[in-house]
Order: sequence, then structure tokens, then C-alpha cells
Amino acid sequence: MAIITLTTDFGEKDHFAGAIKGEIYSELPDVNIVDISHSVSPFNIPEAAYIIFNAYSSFPKGTIHLIGIDSELNEENKHIAIKLDDHYFICANNGIMSMICAEIAPEKIVEINIHDKIDSNFPVLEVFVKVACHIARGGTLEVIGKQIKKIKPIKDVIPFVNDDKTQIIGSVIYIDNYGNVVTNIKKKFFESIQKGRPYEVSARNYKFRTIHHKYSEIVNFSIPPEKRNDEGRSLVVFNSSNYLEIAVYKGNPETVGSASSLMGLDLRDTVTINFLNE
Amino acid sequence: MAIITLTTDFGEKDHFAGAIKGEIYSELPDVNIVDISHSVSPFNIPEAAYIIFNAYSSFPKGTIHLIGIDSELNEENKHIAIKLDDHYFICANNGIMSMICAEIAPEKIVEINIHDKIDSNFPVLEVFVKVACHIARGGTLEVIGKQIKKIKPIKDVIPFVNDDKTQIIGSVIYIDNYGNVVTNIKKKFFESIQKGRPYEVSARNYKFRTIHHKYSEIVNFSIPPEKRNDEGRSLVVFNSSNYLEIAVYKGNPETVGSASSLMGLDLRDTVTINFLNE
Amino acid sequence: MAIITLTTDFGEKDHFAGAIKGEIYSELPDVNIVDISHSVSPFNIPEAAYIIFNAYSSFPKGTIHLIGIDSELNEENKHIAIKLDDHYFICANNGIMSMICAEIAPEKIVEINIHDKIDSNFPVLEVFVKVACHIARGGTLEVIGKQIKKIKPIKDVIPFVNDDKTQIIGSVIYIDNYGNVVTNIKKKFFESIQKGRPYEVSARNYKFRTIHHKYSEIVNFSIPPEKRNDEGRSLVVFNSSNYLEIAVYKGNPETVGSASSLMGLDLRDTVTINFLNE
Repeated sequence: MAIITLTTDFGEKDHFAGAIKGEIYSELPDVNIVDISHSVSPFNIPEAAYIIFNAYSSFPKGTIHLIGIDSELNEENKHIAIKLDDHYFICANNGIMSMICAEIAPEKIVEINIHDKIDSNFPVLEVFVKVACHIARGGTLEVIGKQIKKIKPIKDVIPFVNDDKTQIIGSVIYIDNYGNVVTNIKKKFFESIQKGRPYEVSARNYKFRTIHHKYSEIVNFSIPPEKRNDEGRSLVVFNSSNYLEIAVYKGNPETVGSASSLMGLDLRDTVTINFLNE
Repeated sequence: MAIITLTTDFGEKDHFAGAIKGEIYSELPDVNIVDISHSVSPFNIPEAAYIIFNAYSSFPKGTIHLIGIDSELNEENKHIAIKLDDHYFICANNGIMSMICAEIAPEKIVEINIHDKIDSNFPVLEVFVKVACHIARGGTLEVIGKQIKKIKPIKDVIPFVNDDKTQIIGSVIYIDNYGNVVTNIKKKFFESIQKGRPYEVSARNYKFRTIHHKYSEIVNFSIPPEKRNDEGRSLVVFNSSNYLEIAVYKGNPETVGSASSLMGLDLRDTVTINFLNE
Repeated sequence: MAIITLTTDFGEKDHFAGAIKGEIYSELPDVNIVDISHSVSPFNIPEAAYIIFNAYSSFPKGTIHLIGIDSELNEENKHIAIKLDDHYFICANNGIMSMICAEIAPEKIVEINIHDKIDSNFPVLEVFVKVACHIARGGTLEVIGKQIKKIKPIKDVIPFVNDDKTQIIGSVIYIDNYGNVVTNIKKKFFESIQKGRPYEVSARNYKFRTIHHKYSEIVNFSIPPEKRNDEGRSLVVFNSSNYLEIAVYKGNPETVGSASSLMGLDLRDTVTINFLNE
């Protein structure tokens, strides 16, 4: 049974996501529709890029990912379908796929051209669903579009490294449900520049000399629980998707505060790593 | 495989929606449960009416729609099941279905009467699920209720038109995830009064002389993107459900603001269209 | 087809829940994944305990419940799998299961020990999913863990009763989507102490002498609807899960206010019942 995933900024209340599911089941009764997220911030392309990049590879090969963010068709915002890593992605050509494509070369990109008879202001429903069902039935990309070579990029996907490789200047690309602050510095990239040198991570006035691999590494388990004060302490960690993340241990944006709220870190803010030559 | 959709005000956190799904699977293992929305504002009947009306028709004929809003049984709030447009709807007789029924005549309405042995304060779980599974198994409405002719209306479903047909007075019935403001003025209704005349749409102090069919129609693509200032501009559009909507281009209630927040438009506010006789 | 439910604090936006689903489908294509809640407040164990307790029993026997709250593995936070009431639960040994286990004796508890080759900072994805799929394929708990006898408790599961049984001192354990305030006083427990005596429920300065069984019991239906002022009135009710709840009739935290906001009641606040000896 084919799997179609949904990643949109439709929110949890409106009828849009429900209508999409109904439309898919109307066209293809035997399909498995899986919500990845409908709570992408409206029109926030980097956020959507981060979410789909870090969810897609858990799904089986052949999965079709429908991404509905800023997808109104106009002369600058065409629709595309991409085959990459044996997964299919259907979205607007607005930068969403550039984060994935920066790491994994697409096998095929087509610009969708089945719009001739569809003048829609709900293209996810009327165009993307048709394309997804076509692929789910085993159809090829060539039938629904013409091949193109390049997609639109987004900024800030790759951090900056200075000439003598003593500094990485990254930026905040995502703030998660716990208020933890995710940067564009990935573990492999970091290690390729670090080459074993000691380092210092800086974000605003905060400095860290250790990047942890688990949040609870900062807990001193030899002290009895009631005497500890680890909750609320900040740390740097490579998160489960291998991005450098500035976190607060057991943070909660609604109550005790989070890395974002307590340290004043927001999307696009700078995070710097300085390497110290021995 | 039967499809049962869920539209409720249970929210995203509580156990209610999960329990409903468990109960359905316990009674009917081979069924496809689809969430339309659990984030209807508590007890907000017009909002639920708008959501279910604009989602249901994307689903295949025969789909069963379970609607859990203000559904506690009492002498003024009976439970009903409706067959309409080859879809089934199960809800309280509190006005939710009057928006759909104003446009499409129901084939059959029954007042559910299987409550004799069920004294429940969670009727969606204990009554609606039973009715939904009965219908999914091919059961008829007559078995679970007695036929009635009329359902409870809600106000403001139809806009007001003055005697000489120079004015439509509509009102705001829904505010969507982007903060766009949806009125009760539908495209067909508008055109039946307009008859080709020029018009002016007024909401508070804002006036518009064009109703667009796509949001990006206001963008001047001949100007380079970095010099444009379309984002945040207000416009009037017939939305994807064909309702007249006052929108802000790429609005976001959390950051840059939205039609609702920037223009001070809220539920039940008036939106007027004046027609200009040549 | 096996059912796996998900209860987490991953939120609605992040990729975590989507990735979990993808991972399950990758390992087990024929499975039914059901979201119970992803909106548990971050690290809020009592909240998760209440949600899973009140959702699980609606599901068919044999259902596997995966609970992802505060599940990072460390020396104080081991992973467990529990068979109880013919359901399976997979979670961290952090107190989540103590509310259920206080009422229903577990058939078997194992401490999961398949971590040898998995050094993960996303154990729900890399450990819990493996365990869930193992159980779904008919595997036994002994294969994935070593049996233990006790689990970690949480506080405030059981209310306090004074020596002469004239008073129950309970506390607020959950605030629901309507802002209603749920206490740890269950109907059976209340009745076992009450033994038919009159009582007074106190919360802050508010006092109630009736516990209702339906919210609309406070409505006087003999008055015409437009002359009533029931909406916004506070009441005490045994809720659909049989917990004593302080509610506001048709409350809405976002608009008119709720029991929690109007009466200033929050998690862990005290609710007292005094029994009056005739």
C-alpha cells in the first residue's frame, strides 16, 4: 500500500488538511496517509525544509511526500516533483527542497505541467493530490511534468567558515517544541573543520566548551535528585538529527522557559564556533 | 473499507479523540478513521459548521462524519443523524448542520433514540460511535432513530440584501489559520445580485474595488522581488471554498500580523458590498 | 492488524512524531498507528499518565501503547515494557505508568535491555519502535528485557483522607481543553468514604454542595434560552472518566474564560471535600 505523507502550514483547525485527505481517498482508496506536520508556521519555508528533511528518511522507500507551503501557482512559484533517495516530493519550487538537495543529489526533477485545465486557488488539493496519486499508481514523473535541472535555493543552509578555518559562523534555522535552538551546523561538517581541536561555541553572551551527545550528560547522578539543579541549565548538544543545538535541560516554553526564551535566541541569530590551535 | 471522519472541539492534548478512535476500532477493526479537526474553538457551532461543510465533499460518497461539538444530550439538545449528498452526519441538533442543509436538501434526518440504556456524559464515545459503526456496517437510519423533518437553524448563514438590491450586508463567519477573515458571502450569491455591476467591498474603514481569484494576483511581477512590498498588503478574494474573504498577502498571526489582527476584524463583524448602478 | 498508539510531548510542529510513524511503517507495513496525543506539556509526567490511563481502555485488547515523554535513557531513567489488562505499554520508568498500576495490577513488567548496540538520543525512534514492532509480531517481553517487580511511583495519585474520615484532601492533576479542572478524587473512592453523607466541596473560596453527572444539569430549561445565564456558571461534576472535576458551563479559555482561569485553579492546587455527619 502506497504511503503519502503531508507536511503543510494549514494548521490544526481549518478544513484544508481534512479536505486533502478526503480527496486522496476519493481518488485512491487503498493508500496510507500519514501526517508529518500541519503546524509549520505560515509561509515559513526554512522551517518546512527542516521538518521534511528530518522526517522523510524514516519512511519506506517509495513514499510520496506532499508539501503544502506557499504553493499558490504563479510565474515565480512553479510546482515541482522530485525523485530523490527513492522518495518522491511534491511541492512548490520555493526553496523547500534545497536543504535536502544540498546533501543528496536528486535523481529527477520535473516542473509539473498538468495545470492547463486546472485554474485553482487550492493547488495542494487540485494539483498535488493528482500528482501524488499518479505516482502512487506507479506513474512516472515525465508524464506530469517536464524535466528541469535546478531548483530554487534558500539562504543559510550551509554555515560560513573563515579562510584559515579557525571559525564556523552558523545560524539558527529552527526552534523546536521544547524551545531548543537548532543551528545549521551539522556534526559531520563540524568534525571536518574541527579535526580534533578544542573549541568554544558562542551564542550571544553564552559560551560552551563541550558539545554533548545526550541531554542528561550534564546531570551529576552522584548527587541525590532533590539536591540537584540541572533543570533549566543550558547546554550544547548534537541533536537526534545531528544538528548542533543549544538546549535547556527539561525546558518548557510555557512554564520554566526554554533555550530560545531564556537566552534570547531566535531564528536567523548567529552561533559561532572558534577553534583553538594547540 | 468505510471511512469515519472526526470533527470535534476536543483539542489536541486531551484523551478524548484518542478514546473515540479506540472505541471505533474496538467495534469495527476494518475502518479508516480520518481526523478533520479537533481544534474547533470550544462550543463554537458556526466554526464547526464551516469546517465540516468545506471538508466533507472531498471525501468519497458513503463517508460517515462524526461531529462532536456541544453534544451533551438534554431536552433542548437531541442527537441526530442525517443522510445528505450520499454522506452521513452524526451530531447534536444544535445548528451545526444548518449551513450545509441551507444549500443541499437532506435525504433523511432522524433523531437518535438508542439512549434508553445509555446515560452518558460522553455521548460522542458512547452514542455517536455506536451509530457510526451501525451505518458503516450497512445499517439504516430508521433503526437508530425516528424520522424528523426540521433541524435547528443557526443565524447569519445567509447575508442580507436590501430591497433595491444595491447592497449586500454580510458578516464574518470564520477566521482561518492565516488570520484571513471569511464572510458568509459566497461567489454564486454575489454574482446573482451583482449582475455585472461595479462594486465596493467595505469592512470597517477599508474599501476594495476588486475581488481577486488568487492571492498573488496583487503582486507586480515586473518589479524585482527585493523591491516589492506586497507582503502584508490587504486584498479581497474568493477563497478556495468560494467564500468572500478579506486577506493579507502572506499574513501570519504570530509574526507580521494578519487580516484579522491588522484590520481589527473579528467573528460576526459586518462586511458590506455596495453596487454602483451605471 | 496490530494497533500501535502514540502519546508524546513532541508537539504538533516538529518532525519527531512523523519520523516515528515512518520508522514503524518501515519495519511493519501492516499496522494501524493511532495518535492519542502529541501535545502533552513538555516533560509533564502526571499529564501523560492521566491521558494514557483514560484513553487506553477504549482500544482493543492487544493494543500496543508507545509513550514518549522524558524518555532519554540514563542510569535513573530506564526503559520498560508492561503488559497490563491485555494491553502493552512501552515507556521510560519515570512514573507515567504508576497511575494505571495503582488501579490495575500489571501482568508483567520488563526493563528493556536491547540497548547494547543502540546509543541513541532519540530512543522513542530507535528503541521503543523496535520493541513495539517486536510485540506486534507476536514476540514476548522476555526477549527484549529482564523482568522487574516494581516501577517508579509518582506523587498525588491518591487523595488524602483524615483519620475520622470526615475529609478528603485531593489535588488538581489535569486541566483539560475547556479549562476544566480535574482532581485526583475518583467517584468510587469518593463514594467509599462518603457513605451517603452530605458534603461540601471546597476549592479556594468556592464551595459546592452538589456533584453533578452532566454539565447541563445546572440549566433551568423552564426559562426561555435568551433569559438564561448558565454559561459561565461553575459547577462540580464527575467527568466522563469518573474524576471529580470543577468546571465552568460552556467555558472557553480563549474567550469567556474557564474554571482554571476564572477561579484561579492550577495543577497541584488543593480541592477539599468535607463530610457532614447527620
